[in-house]
Amino acid sequence: MTDHTLDAFRTRCQARIETALHELLPRATVQPFRLHESMRYTVLGGGKRIRPLLTYATGEALGVDAALLDYPACAVEFIHAYSLIHDDLPAMDDDDLRRGRPTCHRAFDEATAILAGDALQTLAFQALAEAPGLSAENRIAMVEALARASGSRGMVGGQALDLEAEGTPLDVAMLEHIHIHKTGALIRASVQMGILAHGALDAEQAERLDRYAKCIGLAFQIQDDVLDVEGETSQIGKTAGRDQELDKATYPSLVGLAEAKEMAASLISEALTAIEIFPAGADPLRGIASALLGRKN
Amino acid sequence: MTDHTLDAFRTRCQARIETALHELLPRATVQPFRLHESMRYTVLGGGKRIRPLLTYATGEALGVDAALLDYPACAVEFIHAYSLIHDDLPAMDDDDLRRGRPTCHRAFDEATAILAGDALQTLAFQALAEAPGLSAENRIAMVEALARASGSRGMVGGQALDLEAEGTPLDVAMLEHIHIHKTGALIRASVQMGILAHGALDAEQAERLDRYAKCIGLAFQIQDDVLDVEGETSQIGKTAGRDQELDKATYPSLVGLAEAKEMAASLISEALTAIEIFPAGADPLRGIASALLGRKN
Repeated sequence: MTDHTLDAFRTRCQARIETALHELLPRATVQPFRLHESMRYTVLGGGKRIRPLLTYATGEALGVDAALLDYPACAVEFIHAYSLIHDDLPAMDDDDLRRGRPTCHRAFDEATAILAGDALQTLAFQALAEAPGLSAENRIAMVEALARASGSRGMVGGQALDLEAEGTPLDVAMLEHIHIHKTGALIRASVQMGILAHGALDAEQAERLDRYAKCIGLAFQIQDDVLDVEGETSQIGKTAGRDQELDKATYPSLVGLAEAKEMAASLISEALTAIEIFPAGADPLRGIASALLGRKN
Repeated sequence: MTDHTLDAFRTRCQARIETALHELLPRATVQPFRLHESMRYTVLGGGKRIRPLLTYATGEALGVDAALLDYPACAVEFIHAYSLIHDDLPAMDDDDLRRGRPTCHRAFDEATAILAGDALQTLAFQALAEAPGLSAENRIAMVEALARASGSRGMVGGQALDLEAEGTPLDVAMLEHIHIHKTGALIRASVQMGILAHGALDAEQAERLDRYAKCIGLAFQIQDDVLDVEGETSQIGKTAGRDQELDKATYPSLVGLAEAKEMAASLISEALTAIEIFPAGADPLRGIASALLGRKN
């Protein structure tokens, strides 16, 4: 897939997801105003929408109508947004800047940020329950997949492990274990949403797509660490060098910058191999994987 | 229903729910240990289990097998437990004591408490998705009902309104509006779980049970306010007089203690009228309503 074609696909998906997010989020003119405003501020305040993009791209690979994926794509984005809000709280990472703007608890207040995160998580499951065009079986399978991916043995578990690990020496295996949960699980769930919307995929195809998702999830995190070293604050939209400041273990700090980049490249290559059996419909998935290595933010 | 019979029903339900909660909560021997320990500490640390009891009692009224209600009953209790953890946080009510023990963030730490609440919310939806014996249609209807009841236009919305209202004068209508969301919505959802497990209830019966739930939800909150004035810390398991200390509007502060008690009694009477068409199976529901007025904690 040429960069140009991926750009066109991405543009189409972003238009879809922004519209769907806008519609599913409660209006700021509905009570409680401040809570709804803070939810909209966080979710609609930019972001790369990589998880929704993966959901749509998986659907494209499987011939699933994109309209069936709007709510599921919103669901993964709501989970992502809620995790960012809570992760940024003073008791957690205590971050002031996110996507180039004040974090939710800085723009509003801490109590509102806690509740906004809580309500966004709820909204994710509501969106799946109410997703139009999908059978009850497919929707409940999505609820289960998203819950498993984001709970105490998924994303939240990864954040807990990450917190526990602060200040203690980590090796690469432990770092990978954290990332597989903290960020990898939701990336996999994003692809799962596309698989589950299809509803009758054969096991090998599902397994290959899942392997793709595992690989790019980890590659994405390694790139994130690399960018934290190489990027500038203005470009990555959050405070650069933050990991080092917090003395957090990262791939570059454990294996060096060059080796970290090589690991990411190798994972991308594995991801592309996993989905090589799919025809042209999978080109957006291929494009996302390839573009990951070149990303600046 | 005699007190004795309600006691027997309550004892049976509590045995069921404690077993189910114990099984659904991740073991503290599974990573992340501290997170799982904090989730178990909070959920298994006592509590009246009024919401699960309502789910089972509704099922009893409708002839639904109690085994079908274990997971849904856990789901409402997980949502309740998560809301208590987040509500007690320093940025929210900043409470040190809950159910006679240190609150989650005091027993562990603030970051763990935030994550424990997050993961308990997720676990609620996972429990519904995986509830054995229920059709996909019934499970997804439960997910939707619980999400609506607990999100920004339900329980979390009520907490947001409550926070916004602190320090401003409230009238009874506004106080009721807050309580209908903050505590009433989840009480109604607890009854809804029983209704939805039945799956084919006629509209009038469902509406009557819902009216019952609305009435006792509000009565429960009024009683809570009354107990905060009349109770002792050792008996109610949290700091007595806390509302007054926080200068929070309560029913006793707005209408006086006697009038507040009368309002609760009138709501209980309305609840009993709503379910008068149901046969003896509804006796536990009747017993719960009657017992509410006499509760000491």
